Amino acid sequence: DPKLKVFTCNANPCLAEAICEHIGVPLGKANVTRFSDGEIQVHINESVRGADVFVIQSTSAPVNEHLMELLVMVDALKRASAKSINVVIPYYGYARQDRKARARDPITAKLVANLIETAGASRVITMDLHATQIQGFFDIPVDHLLGVPILADYFLTKNLEDIVVVSPDHGGVTRARKLAERLKAPIAIIDKRRPKPNVAEIMNIVGAVEDKVCILIDDIIDTAGTITLAANALAENGAKEVYACCTHPVLSGPAIERIQHSKIKELVVTDTIPLPEEKQIEKTHVLSVAPLMGEAIIRVHEELSVSKLFN
Amino acid sequence: DPKLKVFTCNANPCLAEAICEHIGVPLGKANVTRFSDGEIQVHINESVRGADVFVIQSTSAPVNEHLMELLVMVDALKRASAKSINVVIPYYGYARQDRKARARDPITAKLVANLIETAGASRVITMDLHATQIQGFFDIPVDHLLGVPILADYFLTKNLEDIVVVSPDHGGVTRARKLAERLKAPIAIIDKRRPKPNVAEIMNIVGAVEDKVCILIDDIIDTAGTITLAANALAENGAKEVYACCTHPVLSGPAIERIQHSKIKELVVTDTIPLPEEKQIEKTHVLSVAPLMGEAIIRVHEELSVSKLFN
Ligand SMILES: Nc1ncnc2c1ncn2[C@@H]1O[C@H](COP(=O)(O)O)[C@@H](O)[C@H]1O
Ligand SMILES: Nc1ncnc2c1ncn2[C@@H]1O[C@H](COP(=O)(O)O)[C@@H](O)[C@H]1O
Repeated sequence: DPKLKVFTCNANPCLAEAICEHIGVPLGKANVTRFSDGEIQVHINESVRGADVFVIQSTSAPVNEHLMELLVMVDALKRASAKSINVVIPYYGYARQDRKARARDPITAKLVANLIETAGASRVITMDLHATQIQGFFDIPVDHLLGVPILADYFLTKNLEDIVVVSPDHGGVTRARKLAERLKAPIAIIDKRRPKPNVAEIMNIVGAVEDKVCILIDDIIDTAGTITLAANALAENGAKEVYACCTHPVLSGPAIERIQHSKIKELVVTDTIPLPEEKQIEKTHVLSVAPLMGEAIIRVHEELSVSKLFN
Repeated sequence: DPKLKVFTCNANPCLAEAICEHIGVPLGKANVTRFSDGEIQVHINESVRGADVFVIQSTSAPVNEHLMELLVMVDALKRASAKSINVVIPYYGYARQDRKARARDPITAKLVANLIETAGASRVITMDLHATQIQGFFDIPVDHLLGVPILADYFLTKNLEDIVVVSPDHGGVTRARKLAERLKAPIAIIDKRRPKPNVAEIMNIVGAVEDKVCILIDDIIDTAGTITLAANALAENGAKEVYACCTHPVLSGPAIERIQHSKIKELVVTDTIPLPEEKQIEKTHVLSVAPLMGEAIIRVHEELSVSKLFN
């Protein structure tokens, strides 16, 4: 039976530990450090020969450092004769650069997919891709996990009444629908319109929110401009309480300050991206994706073992 | 006649300007910036359709940022229908990770070559690779330029007498030979030996250095440990003056302090890696590779245009 081994680089060490605990294996012995000039140095301190290896690494900020750590780690595992190299990318960075929105744009989400394959990954496990089309950027199997069940379970334990799930923009309606179904709640949509160029946007709310408990949902909260404006618009329109949730708390630039000063009562996120101390505020509640990721790894490993029987 | 266009990312903007001046073309209009979360944003602000494009970018520190900038730029140029994408990498980072020195080492120099090809580069122009074998890591043409003639020309203008060119270790003897030939000088070698484990190395000098003007040469000076110990050993052995030179001034960590406090009279380097202000010290003299790179670009562009006639 080929061994299952889990390694991590530097993006999610705590999540990697929690995943290992869930699976019941020790974390693989490896160090990802830097030479004096900033070049990445990878030391893998145990044999991986013939093993099904899983590498946990979000391509969160600093994205280029984390991506290169992953690529160098995969290169080292490949040359050390791992049987399969399964990269677990809880948060897939560069996902918003998934099309040419303007002339001569790069499509970095596709470039990154190519880089990961070139390094030698045999499979990808990831979560809530900004666009599900990114699965098609890979020519290796992609397991795409969803955060909505984790978020829904949390809100169900709160026993909230008169809920409405709100999409902060028209692009997120499908995601809001999925959460609403699990919470047996209706949906609403914030439909931003700019009447003329250089005129402020109007926040038009489609659906009933007055006296309701609103739950805003997005996949990524980055600078938090969209979500905090949405929260405040909901409050102005008579919402009783406003919760916000997302899978990937990027929280760059003014995000934390905006959230602090917004009408958001509680921000619910997952640990696909760890929050450094300066981003940990009282309003925030973090749910772990470790059990979900752990189960996915166990399932993939079983699949790899079974398929071996047919070889 | 297909257009020649030169672009740069953020590693060598001044060198890129100097190369463009040498060639007599304006620098291509492009911006390589960051989104709020640190992801790279590339804007190419002029058409590159059908053009032979040259992108100047050393993979110097911060190496992972600079490498990713190059890859994203190449991706954007490819999708914008450039006829050929020629990457000019004055300093090729990760070159020292060119073999498995220990079990389970990555071979990052090869990984990087694969990444550059995957992004869509059609040709590489680079300089003084740490190991010339790295040329073979690419399956696209590589033009490998040499720094020794530039360094030699500079020392010739100084009219120094009683020169000996010194290799700071046994791995650099071929390079020292090349410089010595141009300077019509003999060579010497510093042959470090560790008599027993955990005992200080002995600096054994092979060749005559007493009362001589010594010119130490290396390809890269990184933390400057090797070169400053060598310089001091030469001084102790009666050298009249000690110069040091290299193509790639990485100068990380304690390098500048070590050089300041060493017996090195003058440090001669090139601009494959620009020196930030805090690394500019009086002892250092910088020679430009812009004319050499410019000529190489002109030659490659001619070659690409000629080969088109035979298509
Ligand atoms: N890291 C980023 N931060 C902010 N905007 C981005 C980022 N990456 C890509 N974009 C832009 O976001 C837009 C796509 O976002 P979306 O419409 O939400 O899919 C494109 O115009 C991209 O240029
Ligand atoms: N950026 C770096 N800084 C210092 N040492 C490195 C770096 N990259 C690779 N190495 C190590 O340097 C050795 C190769 O250097 P060399 O013997 O000069 O070719 C290998 O043992 C590498 O692990």
